[in-house]
Amino acid sequence: MASVYCALIHHPVVNREGEEVTTSVTNLDVHDIARSARTYGLRGYFVVSPIDAQHPVVQKIIDHWTSGAGTSRFPERGEAIALVRLCHSLDDAIAEIEATEGKTPRLVVTSARVGPGRSSYAQEAERLRAESRPTLLLFGTGHGLSERVLQRADVFLEPIVGPTDFNHLSVRAAAAITLDRLLAPKSAANNPV
Amino acid sequence: MASVYCALIHHPVVNREGEEVTTSVTNLDVHDIARSARTYGLRGYFVVSPIDAQHPVVQKIIDHWTSGAGTSRFPERGEAIALVRLCHSLDDAIAEIEATEGKTPRLVVTSARVGPGRSSYAQEAERLRAESRPTLLLFGTGHGLSERVLQRADVFLEPIVGPTDFNHLSVRAAAAITLDRLLAPKSAANNPV
Repeated sequence: MASVYCALIHHPVVNREGEEVTTSVTNLDVHDIARSARTYGLRGYFVVSPIDAQHPVVQKIIDHWTSGAGTSRFPERGEAIALVRLCHSLDDAIAEIEATEGKTPRLVVTSARVGPGRSSYAQEAERLRAESRPTLLLFGTGHGLSERVLQRADVFLEPIVGPTDFNHLSVRAAAAITLDRLLAPKSAANNPV
Repeated sequence: MASVYCALIHHPVVNREGEEVTTSVTNLDVHDIARSARTYGLRGYFVVSPIDAQHPVVQKIIDHWTSGAGTSRFPERGEAIALVRLCHSLDDAIAEIEATEGKTPRLVVTSARVGPGRSSYAQEAERLRAESRPTLLLFGTGHGLSERVLQRADVFLEPIVGPTDFNHLSVRAAAAITLDRLLAPKSAANNPV
């Protein structure tokens, strides 16, 4: 089984018009995705933002729950938040995984857009079980990952679709569903064999 | 296929000590779960709070996105938020479904706690496909639904578990995963037949 990491990218992502932008880190993205990452056994959750001014704010959230006042009242929050690694760029996240694991991670991207060469969740779940290299799942804020991030991907997952044509899940919901589809014990799937 | 609704219960729920409490409605719970509900084809999303003072605040959020300034900039937000029904109690939500559907809904509850008589997601997904009665999925805020809500359930779903023993998903993540497990097109599951 591969070591799995995820990263929430705040730059480079695109806005509604497809322009490259930088989004702000939000408290709830840090918490919700950390809790999902902890539930599904991830080794780390990178919060990627190039904005220096946001790093002390996020660090303060991390410290509050891992060594500050939050530890006694909600210890399980600290257990999840302890997975958070704050960094400036995707390359920093990759370098940190290389330093820890001694191997370059496979990059797996997610996008609400359809296109050629997409991998199904079943295929990727199977690969994760067989893989020895670490894997880094990338989630985009705003209107999704920039083309120059998507082009670096080793695997491009198909969009998450329900029984409707509405594909505007929150990144918190999309991350939770992605981790569940890829990493839940097989008996949990809705597809009895 | 059953008409499926969900409700986010702010009372009666329990706190960390198991005492019955009322939680506050949060903006992001309204948005995230509405977007997930819209993605998975739900007919309505009940935000259930007995606190009168919170109703105008939530109504303002609904109005902003469905008829106010938010409609032009983010029309898809309005499409999701249009599913939101604000009500004071679970019984009000049930009555509204009865008035719309002409049938009493089955109540399906979720809980992070294990126990006897739990239904698997695969079983419930199968039931939903065969069922003609409407179904109301209940999600609890705080530390989960109160015992007196759980006792009314027709179906008690097993907890969502990953490959770890950590079971502290956010309600936004748990709702997204529940809808995906129950309502995603079958080919999306991670369990190839």
